[in-house]
Amino acid sequence: MSVLETIHASEDVKKLSPDELDTLCDELRHTIVETVSKNGGHLSSNLGIVELTVALHKTFTLPHDQIVWDVGHQCYCHKLLTGRKEAFDTLRKTGGISGFPRPSESPCDVFIAGHSSTSVSAANGIAKAKALAGDDGYVVAVIGDGAMTGGLSYEGLCNAGRSHDRLIVILNDNQMSISRNVGFMARHLAMLRSGPRYVQAKNNVGNLLSSIPLIGEPLHRFMVRVKGRLKNSVYHSSSTFEDMGFYYLGPVNGHNLYDLTRALQTAKNLNRPVLLHVDTVKGQGYTPAMQNPDKFHGISAFDPKTGMATAKPGPNFSTVIGDQLCKLAEEDPKICVATAAMTGGTGLTTFSKQFPKRFFDVGIAEEHAVTFASGLAVGGYLPVFAVYSTFLQRSYDQLLNDTAIMNNHIVLAIDRAGVVPDDGETHQGIFDVPFLSTIPNTTIFAPSTYDELAITLKQALYETDGIAAVRYPKGGQFPHLDLYKSDYKPFTHFRDPSARTVVITYGRLFSNVLQAVQKVQEVMPVSVIKLTRIHPIPEEVLALSRQYQRVVFFEEGSKNGGIAQQLGSRLMESRYRGKYEIHAIDNFVPTCSVEDGLKLCKLDVSSMVKTLLQEDLPRGRK
Amino acid sequence: MSVLETIHASEDVKKLSPDELDTLCDELRHTIVETVSKNGGHLSSNLGIVELTVALHKTFTLPHDQIVWDVGHQCYCHKLLTGRKEAFDTLRKTGGISGFPRPSESPCDVFIAGHSSTSVSAANGIAKAKALAGDDGYVVAVIGDGAMTGGLSYEGLCNAGRSHDRLIVILNDNQMSISRNVGFMARHLAMLRSGPRYVQAKNNVGNLLSSIPLIGEPLHRFMVRVKGRLKNSVYHSSSTFEDMGFYYLGPVNGHNLYDLTRALQTAKNLNRPVLLHVDTVKGQGYTPAMQNPDKFHGISAFDPKTGMATAKPGPNFSTVIGDQLCKLAEEDPKICVATAAMTGGTGLTTFSKQFPKRFFDVGIAEEHAVTFASGLAVGGYLPVFAVYSTFLQRSYDQLLNDTAIMNNHIVLAIDRAGVVPDDGETHQGIFDVPFLSTIPNTTIFAPSTYDELAITLKQALYETDGIAAVRYPKGGQFPHLDLYKSDYKPFTHFRDPSARTVVITYGRLFSNVLQAVQKVQEVMPVSVIKLTRIHPIPEEVLALSRQYQRVVFFEEGSKNGGIAQQLGSRLMESRYRGKYEIHAIDNFVPTCSVEDGLKLCKLDVSSMVKTLLQEDLPRGRK
Repeated sequence: MSVLETIHASEDVKKLSPDELDTLCDELRHTIVETVSKNGGHLSSNLGIVELTVALHKTFTLPHDQIVWDVGHQCYCHKLLTGRKEAFDTLRKTGGISGFPRPSESPCDVFIAGHSSTSVSAANGIAKAKALAGDDGYVVAVIGDGAMTGGLSYEGLCNAGRSHDRLIVILNDNQMSISRNVGFMARHLAMLRSGPRYVQAKNNVGNLLSSIPLIGEPLHRFMVRVKGRLKNSVYHSSSTFEDMGFYYLGPVNGHNLYDLTRALQTAKNLNRPVLLHVDTVKGQGYTPAMQNPDKFHGISAFDPKTGMATAKPGPNFSTVIGDQLCKLAEEDPKICVATAAMTGGTGLTTFSKQFPKRFFDVGIAEEHAVTFASGLAVGGYLPVFAVYSTFLQRSYDQLLNDTAIMNNHIVLAIDRAGVVPDDGETHQGIFDVPFLSTIPNTTIFAPSTYDELAITLKQALYETDGIAAVRYPKGGQFPHLDLYKSDYKPFTHFRDPSARTVVITYGRLFSNVLQAVQKVQEVMPVSVIKLTRIHPIPEEVLALSRQYQRVVFFEEGSKNGGIAQQLGSRLMESRYRGKYEIHAIDNFVPTCSVEDGLKLCKLDVSSMVKTLLQEDLPRGRK
Repeated sequence: MSVLETIHASEDVKKLSPDELDTLCDELRHTIVETVSKNGGHLSSNLGIVELTVALHKTFTLPHDQIVWDVGHQCYCHKLLTGRKEAFDTLRKTGGISGFPRPSESPCDVFIAGHSSTSVSAANGIAKAKALAGDDGYVVAVIGDGAMTGGLSYEGLCNAGRSHDRLIVILNDNQMSISRNVGFMARHLAMLRSGPRYVQAKNNVGNLLSSIPLIGEPLHRFMVRVKGRLKNSVYHSSSTFEDMGFYYLGPVNGHNLYDLTRALQTAKNLNRPVLLHVDTVKGQGYTPAMQNPDKFHGISAFDPKTGMATAKPGPNFSTVIGDQLCKLAEEDPKICVATAAMTGGTGLTTFSKQFPKRFFDVGIAEEHAVTFASGLAVGGYLPVFAVYSTFLQRSYDQLLNDTAIMNNHIVLAIDRAGVVPDDGETHQGIFDVPFLSTIPNTTIFAPSTYDELAITLKQALYETDGIAAVRYPKGGQFPHLDLYKSDYKPFTHFRDPSARTVVITYGRLFSNVLQAVQKVQEVMPVSVIKLTRIHPIPEEVLALSRQYQRVVFFEEGSKNGGIAQQLGSRLMESRYRGKYEIHAIDNFVPTCSVEDGLKLCKLDVSSMVKTLLQEDLPRGRK
């Protein structure tokens, strides 16, 4: 029986001998590589945090104590140690366990994540609640150096540091965020790491504290003071974290279980906000990932022996827009591109190398990216911010206040729009259309094909004022669109002269709609209006819709505030007398494939066929 | 002739003698106190920055060089020096000049503000554009220590610091943000201020540089290096700002023109990102404001001799909710309240004193406030975040991702909802309903009266899941509502049995609607549906609406994504055959009084009357 098989809940970790703990770490690594090689997922970050996770479960008592994982894609070991190892092969599958913390899965997942830099703020709240309630549990936030580039982490640290609660922030310093690490925190941590040596547990003055029995508050407090004076001779010191109010400990070797456990015990005994700086290596223990941690950050299925991808990736919307931006930037020296730590994910690797002076990876700082881009626009440049739909939610105020009021012209290249596979609720791109369309001076394009992506990108850059967004899904073009000729029109009307029903749609759903319409055409002729510019809705679409008795809008996005709802209200205001139906997404979408997600939302071909056929048309015109 | 009268544009400042400059500062102070005492406005911050503004105009050449004012409420001197002194008595009046930078007013206003912590990011973008274009102009960001509590300022500094552009960040350290200053930056600045003495211009090593003639890059670079080594013996040093990549200079006495001018000249000569730390006193030169800078931060009309308010303020929605929260918190130990540096503005001064352990001023950190509140909710507490509508725009992602997905129960007390007087585009509260209603698991209440505010607050706290928002306007209850009895119903239907038309509305507009309906009732009977819970729309409202031939929705908020549009689409989907009209706000609203703003948006009583009467009802039912 393996050691991992004996672990049914967090407390079982406490029973293991040092040798068994080492074996457990090996088994965790093996399980993670095996599963991710099949299901895809986050690899490097999980391999880097095996010992830290084991040490946390050894030191703390969950769920009395709580761990808040920042971003959350490093929680695989945690899931394996908290009763989810049997379900682990369903990782990131439809109906399976999430690749991120999910409170509904386990009381040991106290807070959702998915978006970066939130853990310290959340932990601050949970620890404050514990303090107010007289609960003596600890709250541990585990945050990477990459997440430290986000302003929310700074707000969280400034506020948490001035509390007096049992809050431990573990800075998991792997010297790499998703793309590359930038700025102040990287420099500050490099300075801290440059200390004479790692803190060895044996001469760690913290042990003074952790080894004394409980002898009451006064002595304890005295010891803390003494330790404060002593520690700088052994630990490195950090004026930044200490100015924030934290007791700084570190750096500690994140792959030495013994050192880690002693450091965590020391942090516990301090009874105040502590920042523990842990050095880890991304991909630790798996050679291909150690050699190329960036590639193995988030990865599709691969051969665990070689690390080579199982399927060769073809072109996709991200690579196509990356190529287009390179082409356009060659001709136009005004084009600049910004990303928030997503250079690879947004297809910008080539651009970043070809135009280093006009490429800006701002770190995980979507707010800054937009205000910075608006500044570039004021200076006469043509900024493009390439960003995942879900992360653009962070920039709402910067779009509205810092950009739209001045009507500054910036372009948003919105990747991962619509249903996003495998990552669950926190990564779905279903809100960008609703929140962007509340902002005046904003235009949104939703291309269905690669050709149309290129066309709309040009329109966004050169024929649009204010905020111009081009949104496109993760992955490749849907099938059955090869014959569709993209052009520069904001919409295309495929008229069946005998149709009483018109279907309106946009983006990749156009492919599903074409297939559904073909399937029903023998019994029910249907026209189609395919929008390319979805906001503002082209005026002619209103008049055209009115020519039909029934208008059915399929939208791969949130119903509330979406384009279908806007059109519905416009039709109502213009006294359309036909039947109007909206088929869109009306709640969060859980972990699933694109196919399953669309089926769940009744936006797959057969649901569309059903929808189209189930409705008796009123008799009358036509 | 006064000195100020000779200043027609920024460059005129350069011609003045030292004595004239001193006189100019006195005259600026006098003009500002006179105008603000009549028009209301921001006083303390503007008085604190007189010398700095004059020194900036003396040192830099606008608009070739540019100044980005953070928040922007300290730009009055700047406006007086850039061709707007004749219009200055229209400050914050309808059609007058804005109390914030506004690019449409002057080429010297390069970037809008109004929301805090944006200046460094914007300046980073503008300076980068200048660098790319080979323009040798400087960009200066002026940011207060309060704004430094916002995460966006941290993102901006981390990114701007690693550029090599001509960017100068002036940290206007007045040791006070709008309420009180919190956290890390306050401590760090206190440490810097605690240096042995102010830097005197005469022994400022920077002068080495500023006094040498232009002798080419190599020597210049050599001098910078030498200076770098020398400066720590004279200037204080800041590892934080220097780790960020800035050359740190300071602190400098912000009320000594000579010191300021020399320091600015030194900063110019460095040709790289510089952070200049300037110590100022809020309210400097006007005794009542110096004694009570918080009261004089943003103030209504007052007697300039005594500093006493001209009108005695009555109760308003902010004070009422503050009182209610105190009452409820006395009985319920779970209630906690957070504010983002707006304790006074949101009516929480009493609460903060009565329940200090359950009150959290997080600084200007709306993102943190929401994620922190969500953490409190996880810990079993009942958090209320009191915030201005416009600033809640900052928390969109934290509401959606960190709160709504988990369905955590937090209450938003949304102050300044709807048209906000005097502060212009950046402060209107017209987007909260559209952006909140895109978020699943969210309920929005819009009370019309104080009684209803108390009722809905209880409903939000105790009868609602997930995110529960209560939104209310700045100022007091509108008239004609004394006879209206609030109750716990989500809506009230005032039925006129002979009416073919129903008006739907919510919030304070209910008062205008009642007046308008009364005015038209002789010629045209009208029913009214007053919503109290506006989202989700109560289902019965749909059925009731369908009983009328004409539905007119008056909404004090953005049309796109608003409740009226949502209802319109719902009516369309349910095949309502009557006439549906939306009268809401369809663009940014400029500086104006509430009365003028509502008139502009056709939401005043006489516009409503006109709207109601101008429509010929179709003949038919009834």
